[in-house]
Amino acid sequence: MNSLKHKAAVNDWERVVGKENVVTRESSLREAETSTFAIRHRVPAIVRPGTRAEVQECLRIANRREVPVYPISSGKNWGYGSRVPASDGCVLLDLGRMNRILDFSEDLAYVTVEPGVTQAQLYAFLQERKSKLWMDATGASPHCSMIGNTMERGFGHTPYGDHFANSCGFEVVLPDGSVIETGFARFPSAKTAPLHRSGVGPILDGLFSQSNLGIVTRMTIWLMPAPEYFQAYYFRCEQNDGLGAILDALRPLRLDGTIRSASHIANDYKVLSALQQYPWDLTGGETPLQGHHMATLRNELKIGAWNGSGALYGTKAQVKEARRLLRRALKGKATRLQFLDDRLLRLAARFAKPYQLVSGWNLERMLAVLKPVYGLMRGIPTDHPLFSTYWRKRTPPPPSMDPDRDGCGLLWCSPVAPNDGRSAHELTGIATELILRQGFEPAISITILSERTISCVIALGYDREVEGEDERAKSCYDELLAALAAKGYHSYRLSVGSMSAMGDKNSTYSELLRDLKYMIDPKGILSPGRYIPISDLEKYRSAHL
Amino acid sequence: MNSLKHKAAVNDWERVVGKENVVTRESSLREAETSTFAIRHRVPAIVRPGTRAEVQECLRIANRREVPVYPISSGKNWGYGSRVPASDGCVLLDLGRMNRILDFSEDLAYVTVEPGVTQAQLYAFLQERKSKLWMDATGASPHCSMIGNTMERGFGHTPYGDHFANSCGFEVVLPDGSVIETGFARFPSAKTAPLHRSGVGPILDGLFSQSNLGIVTRMTIWLMPAPEYFQAYYFRCEQNDGLGAILDALRPLRLDGTIRSASHIANDYKVLSALQQYPWDLTGGETPLQGHHMATLRNELKIGAWNGSGALYGTKAQVKEARRLLRRALKGKATRLQFLDDRLLRLAARFAKPYQLVSGWNLERMLAVLKPVYGLMRGIPTDHPLFSTYWRKRTPPPPSMDPDRDGCGLLWCSPVAPNDGRSAHELTGIATELILRQGFEPAISITILSERTISCVIALGYDREVEGEDERAKSCYDELLAALAAKGYHSYRLSVGSMSAMGDKNSTYSELLRDLKYMIDPKGILSPGRYIPISDLEKYRSAHL
Repeated sequence: MNSLKHKAAVNDWERVVGKENVVTRESSLREAETSTFAIRHRVPAIVRPGTRAEVQECLRIANRREVPVYPISSGKNWGYGSRVPASDGCVLLDLGRMNRILDFSEDLAYVTVEPGVTQAQLYAFLQERKSKLWMDATGASPHCSMIGNTMERGFGHTPYGDHFANSCGFEVVLPDGSVIETGFARFPSAKTAPLHRSGVGPILDGLFSQSNLGIVTRMTIWLMPAPEYFQAYYFRCEQNDGLGAILDALRPLRLDGTIRSASHIANDYKVLSALQQYPWDLTGGETPLQGHHMATLRNELKIGAWNGSGALYGTKAQVKEARRLLRRALKGKATRLQFLDDRLLRLAARFAKPYQLVSGWNLERMLAVLKPVYGLMRGIPTDHPLFSTYWRKRTPPPPSMDPDRDGCGLLWCSPVAPNDGRSAHELTGIATELILRQGFEPAISITILSERTISCVIALGYDREVEGEDERAKSCYDELLAALAAKGYHSYRLSVGSMSAMGDKNSTYSELLRDLKYMIDPKGILSPGRYIPISDLEKYRSAHL
Repeated sequence: MNSLKHKAAVNDWERVVGKENVVTRESSLREAETSTFAIRHRVPAIVRPGTRAEVQECLRIANRREVPVYPISSGKNWGYGSRVPASDGCVLLDLGRMNRILDFSEDLAYVTVEPGVTQAQLYAFLQERKSKLWMDATGASPHCSMIGNTMERGFGHTPYGDHFANSCGFEVVLPDGSVIETGFARFPSAKTAPLHRSGVGPILDGLFSQSNLGIVTRMTIWLMPAPEYFQAYYFRCEQNDGLGAILDALRPLRLDGTIRSASHIANDYKVLSALQQYPWDLTGGETPLQGHHMATLRNELKIGAWNGSGALYGTKAQVKEARRLLRRALKGKATRLQFLDDRLLRLAARFAKPYQLVSGWNLERMLAVLKPVYGLMRGIPTDHPLFSTYWRKRTPPPPSMDPDRDGCGLLWCSPVAPNDGRSAHELTGIATELILRQGFEPAISITILSERTISCVIALGYDREVEGEDERAKSCYDELLAALAAKGYHSYRLSVGSMSAMGDKNSTYSELLRDLKYMIDPKGILSPGRYIPISDLEKYRSAHL
């Protein structure tokens, strides 16, 4: 907080939201500037509006004082930048206090929320009401915002895994402080406002996803009816090059609706990082974890080269038929296809210890990993995946995990590929080779998010407290992004440090985005640099003003 | 063609597309100005570009000469305005010559087309290749453009019934003649361009649907794999007030994925208009067709007050289970739930005549209506629904039907409502009472297009050759639109004569649209008035220029 301009803005904001909701304490600001990788964007203050009207007023002040702001819902954008803004000097607009659940319908299966509503909060809300509806949850954290994740186009594991596709009726505060509602919500007393994506005329929702064109202060999220019967499935594939055949076998089932949910396939590194931290002893302290060590661990822990999970939802008869089709499709391509339901899970938990005595396999440890994923497939939030961000740490994670605070290094690269074996094989091959060569472990998970594409999440885990690792990891991430893009595999989401990384075919698309940004936010006060490169905007402004 | 400006523009366009592709013959222009209702927008010329580059050049000329243009793909926007532009004095840009199928994948189930590709053409393409993929078709006409219908957010009957939701990778020529591609297509060699709706950053596709912000010259359309087994279902409900219970019974099956397609429910008037023309004899020439006459016809023709149709897609076992669930859900709510597959349809056709002798029921006539709908549920285009546009005519339709040419009056009102019984009951009640009171027949079909909403299409059919009917029908349509909007049921699509009819809650949304339009098309040369009211734009321009 070094300029007069900032001080004046802070004074104005304090008048709107109250002194207690404007944070300028140095330690809090330093925390907010810290993510799971190195990024040096200063945060001069944190402002916490409590209502939509306060958000509007905050933006009017930002315009008047020409101080840029950057909204966060819960700030749990792990692996992509946590709470850190996409450019230097943005005041955080923390929407966490706006955490009301505004509307809910059991019959029409939706809930309308504010940005501060977290996965855990929505889950508790549904449980309290004994609702027969399931939410979808990402593995990020129970304390992650529903709206935040949806606007970033995050995804989970159920048939409603594609969050953006299952949302509608946004209330958006534009950078000048005015408000619009999307879809039919723009009309008075519209009965379909929470039910229908498009209204009449152009569809604007997409403009506000992965952008800096407005702040979504209300959203309807569709929920799925709990099925009569639920059964998870798990399978393995022992060969590194067996992934392609599995995807080609699953694709027809995804296309014809037999598999309706976003099933996952994780490689050995990914599963290992969920089971334990880096095996320092085994490698004698060496990094990265090379193939032969991985082979030993795979064998010991009964991990496949590829490890699939997904679930079947429906009546008993529907699930039975899906099971038959899944078995037939995976025959000869996957091993140990197993089905798990509530009854079996309870049994397994009870007999894990005796089972280990007989078989030597540590079922209990495996269950500790299986159960959270099993829950996610029923839309139950978990913080278990956070464990893996401590992968390269030399000490175990504390009871209350916080990767930002604890210096966990994590960069997520998330390329999208055609849902076919050849593409998946090529993509994972490039990533595995490149990452190992640069001294890290390629922890890869593949989500069959849609009928025609797979979304990969490649985690680069490291220890930020090791000298030079920040730089090495960033350089590895940049190289990976470029190598995959060169082969036609572009990321669906970017980290706040890399939002200018995507090169268009020609400049028309970027110019259109820039024109949009300039029209809606002429002073560039909302999240400058977020998905619409800031340099372009500045060039544009200097040319046009 | 009365101004120098127009003459100069025509000269320029002739140089680009060739003299033979610029139409200025009076009779052709009068035809293009004719729709199924009264609208007086003059068309000074028709220009027919053959390539995307020609479209770009045509738009540059339009800007230079300041002559507005209005693109049509096939111009079969029946009931909403056919080929007629949304404002006076627009030159038609007829994209019909751009009819190439550019890309196709049997494995990933998509096809990439130009605007001139019609339903019939795509169907023939798939048949020739003996493809195992089904397209979705609307009932409009086999010669209706795939892209045109998708951009208007039209819908059909299969699980891919929501056309816009099953499209991606648009190539769009902006009003200034520049080109963008949406989604990942913006990146060089992107492997997921035809597979993934969103790319990275804001999603722009929606901007170009129901708008005047660009011309889509290429689009990927997703196709569905033909199921192992297909079975259509039909049911009736004899009570006018029985609709609500049926919708409430079907909703859970739509929500849980048992019913995956866009099933239809048509009222008695709708079915009657598909079976025959207006019963002039029965009513002694009186209109409208009142309830007691309708009751007689219902009884005679075995039509229900509500008549449902839909289909089940899957393996034999999947369809069997869906059938069980459907039977259970409709028990006591619908009558004569019947299932029809290919085998049974062949049998019925063979035995229609003997069956009539025994039962007295004209099965042949009913099959003539059932078969096209059965085909539509398998994505087979048909022109059968065009028959009903001749409803009020005193002579039978000619072999080659053309509602525009033949003075068929048709206005389609298409409100969206929550997928619940109460809303459907209220909406259809309002429409039925209002339309009969104004002297027309309420031909209503309800499509359960999504899990949470129903899309109604209410056809106002009349004879344009009867003095005063144009005015009476328009006034009825306007009143209907207003009455439904007042109750919260807004239309998903508007006729070119009514695009300024929707009143926002406040002006911010309209202002944003207007700003967008002005930014992208400062001279307003692309389809002025189309979904973004022209008056606003002119007000804006006079204020800002």
